[in-house]
Amino acid sequence: MAKPKKTPRPKAEAPKGFRDYFGAEVTQRAEMLRKIAGVYHRYGFDALESSGVETVEALGKFLPDVDRPNEGVFAWQEDADADKPGDWLALRYDLTAPLARVYAQHRNDLPTPYRRYAMGPVWRNEKPGPGRFRQFYQCDADTVGAPSVAADAEICAMLADCLEEVGIERGDYIVRVNNRKVLNGVMEVAGLAGDEKAAERGIVLRAIDKLDRLGLDGVRALLGAGRKDDSGDFTDGAGLTETQADVVMGFMQAKRDTGAETVARLRDLVGGSTVGLQGVEELETIADLMAAGGYGPDRVEIDPSVVRGLGYYTGPVFEAELTFEIKDDKGRVRNFGSVAGGGRYDDLVKRFTGQEVPATGVSIGVDRLLAALHAKRRLTSDTIGPVVVTVMDKARMADYQAMVAELRQAGIRAEVYLGNPKNFGNQLKYADRRNSPVAVIAGGDEFDSGMVQIKDLILGAKIAENATLEEWKDRPSQYEVPRVDLVAKVREILELNR
Amino acid sequence: MAKPKKTPRPKAEAPKGFRDYFGAEVTQRAEMLRKIAGVYHRYGFDALESSGVETVEALGKFLPDVDRPNEGVFAWQEDADADKPGDWLALRYDLTAPLARVYAQHRNDLPTPYRRYAMGPVWRNEKPGPGRFRQFYQCDADTVGAPSVAADAEICAMLADCLEEVGIERGDYIVRVNNRKVLNGVMEVAGLAGDEKAAERGIVLRAIDKLDRLGLDGVRALLGAGRKDDSGDFTDGAGLTETQADVVMGFMQAKRDTGAETVARLRDLVGGSTVGLQGVEELETIADLMAAGGYGPDRVEIDPSVVRGLGYYTGPVFEAELTFEIKDDKGRVRNFGSVAGGGRYDDLVKRFTGQEVPATGVSIGVDRLLAALHAKRRLTSDTIGPVVVTVMDKARMADYQAMVAELRQAGIRAEVYLGNPKNFGNQLKYADRRNSPVAVIAGGDEFDSGMVQIKDLILGAKIAENATLEEWKDRPSQYEVPRVDLVAKVREILELNR
Repeated sequence: MAKPKKTPRPKAEAPKGFRDYFGAEVTQRAEMLRKIAGVYHRYGFDALESSGVETVEALGKFLPDVDRPNEGVFAWQEDADADKPGDWLALRYDLTAPLARVYAQHRNDLPTPYRRYAMGPVWRNEKPGPGRFRQFYQCDADTVGAPSVAADAEICAMLADCLEEVGIERGDYIVRVNNRKVLNGVMEVAGLAGDEKAAERGIVLRAIDKLDRLGLDGVRALLGAGRKDDSGDFTDGAGLTETQADVVMGFMQAKRDTGAETVARLRDLVGGSTVGLQGVEELETIADLMAAGGYGPDRVEIDPSVVRGLGYYTGPVFEAELTFEIKDDKGRVRNFGSVAGGGRYDDLVKRFTGQEVPATGVSIGVDRLLAALHAKRRLTSDTIGPVVVTVMDKARMADYQAMVAELRQAGIRAEVYLGNPKNFGNQLKYADRRNSPVAVIAGGDEFDSGMVQIKDLILGAKIAENATLEEWKDRPSQYEVPRVDLVAKVREILELNR
Repeated sequence: MAKPKKTPRPKAEAPKGFRDYFGAEVTQRAEMLRKIAGVYHRYGFDALESSGVETVEALGKFLPDVDRPNEGVFAWQEDADADKPGDWLALRYDLTAPLARVYAQHRNDLPTPYRRYAMGPVWRNEKPGPGRFRQFYQCDADTVGAPSVAADAEICAMLADCLEEVGIERGDYIVRVNNRKVLNGVMEVAGLAGDEKAAERGIVLRAIDKLDRLGLDGVRALLGAGRKDDSGDFTDGAGLTETQADVVMGFMQAKRDTGAETVARLRDLVGGSTVGLQGVEELETIADLMAAGGYGPDRVEIDPSVVRGLGYYTGPVFEAELTFEIKDDKGRVRNFGSVAGGGRYDDLVKRFTGQEVPATGVSIGVDRLLAALHAKRRLTSDTIGPVVVTVMDKARMADYQAMVAELRQAGIRAEVYLGNPKNFGNQLKYADRRNSPVAVIAGGDEFDSGMVQIKDLILGAKIAENATLEEWKDRPSQYEVPRVDLVAKVREILELNR
């Protein structure tokens, strides 16, 4: 390889829309993923990990005839191979499209139904914005090859269990369930069936999906002539008649106090539509199964306003919403909102095999859920740092290393200060920066007398903050103990400050 | 979006060089990463997770003037922005280059020294081959801003601890340590110093690195005129004289029975070279620190034949090798070989800031290590599947779901069969496919009498394998118990088969 020419220094910056995660941000996410995986596993799901890279062809959804199929994804072309052009590859944008590919590829070796969970980063080539990143984590569970609506019901129960497992208390969340077939039935009743009405149905779906943000009047406007937003931008409406819009609005507001009442109301609304009635029956079965499993309406409810944006859902759809209020960036109080969603999609595998394979699944937005736990102060960014053994005498490095080795063997997080030891103040500043609970100090005097100094840094910080604090007055913040008692004394201080 | 034209079905294939990981492969890796992270954490390292995507500029090592800087990496260009062309982005090829970028970007907010660990996939745009994949996991720990060789010694000790933590027994691995400065001193002695000899030094380095594979004669040939391999291909040599080659060969074979003797031998070999002597002293310090920490030559040894391929190392280099023998694909017995490596690199951050920042670290090849544990039969691909509650009567789905809910609440992995229940044989085949320990069976009779059938599938399989097995003869493989005893009986069977 030729040597590069002299160039200006590279910029030390993560690419736009990507960020770095430090310390507790990383370990808390890992812990959350571990807990959710534990629930998925207990429900009988097996782990699957596919790579971050797929062929654009397998990911699908892209136009085959554009020069560069990178709308929404990060894509690139492989180098040409002898006489044929290289394949287009792309980073996965979710975990469902790869599952469809994996199932189609390995279906003869997999059990049916195939129940798998997967977790990992996905990438979206979107305009980055505040709080919007182009890489984020998903954590999915799907059942492939199970036509039974019991599979959907089970996933709703599992979703509730996952939320409680990671620390969202009962009452702080609700899993809302709907069914696309009911919606299709309502569309039929409103005269919006058939391929030629696909555009209108799309507008209706998107309008319902915006209920949270726009309110009833806003949705109504989008069903009709259209809507001008605060900035003056105009969004085209579906152009429904009053009567048609009434049907859709009625559906959206069909939720009643109990699941049974909601189901009865929906049965009225879909009239004689076959698909609509089938959807209502599925919802009824889900409601029964939930009740039998002890998942009451405080955890899982039927709510006709849930539609889920993605076009590929074909039956039950569900969404987990956190119901507590937080303050947003501008200090406004609002509901935290959705942290997970999913539903039944029966057509994804068909793309590959030609055979329809019924599938249903859920995706949990782990980063949103972490943000929620921070908002509820269930998680803190403070983490206890390591015990720091300071260096008074460079020639004694072996002795300092022996100290940390003993501490570590006792399961205590510890390290020797490895920066330039000349300025002792810097060593204590370092310990402070690391949020260290204890500093160990030993110089010539201590080595001569077989002693070691142990400094309680948490108490030290508390005293510095509030020097008159009565309760601390009898507790020293530094101890001299025999070297052999190092581990015992450090452990004692750690336990005092727990 | 316009509708895509009718196209042939996409191929259901992972891209060339990528693969899918199922079940135990995923959970065993996750468990290994968790254990290694635990050791890193105990040593005082903090977690860092940067994204998989970096700018090509920040990753470095690429020619600035080629049209497409994708040699060895997967790279693509962002869409142009108004009047300036889009940045080139790439998937990270290791975890060290991103660390240098992160440290340079955030250095004012990070403690010094900055001790971080990171784990995750990295991507290499290389020709895939058998067992060579283009995405694989690394698991690194690095100390940035610590000039002390104690930082290197600590990493060698930590590497030994990590290997034992994941199940490699003492005696089955060795951490081998060398120092690039000693090698540079030897090069000086051999008359290979100076920029104009860079090419020869490169050939010498690569030749030493191949000792394992080529043996002493092969390396010797590469130091001299060159070497023809078995296929007849010729590799150019460094063109050293006999005397020069003797010096290098002497260095490579300088290992003696004890660290002290090896150090003494190296001191002779580097003669008056300042850098060489400095390197020898660093090795001596590392040997002393290792001994003081209780890491004897059965775990960490000085071995002058370790060079590590990467050009950026500037001081101590180390490598963990597994010393037990395995059979390779062709049935030949060979040492398992290297599973981790690292060393000191003082120039990586300088690319960004202009200031030299001393750093040292290690990277553990998690996938290799997993393969090693499988080769030693410390890990098995068999995992116990879920308890399967079979479906005799579709109308009783709520009852079946209640059973699995109880089992799960008792911490037992369980699921209802969600495929088509018509053929009961298929349900038992499914349970077998999942490696289920227990099947639960309840039809009309059982529901009427408040009982449930519980089938011990592990015992069943054992009996099927060996019907005369004396020790099993008094143990039934199917039980009828009252419904209320479901959980207790299942637990009892799971414990019997543990």
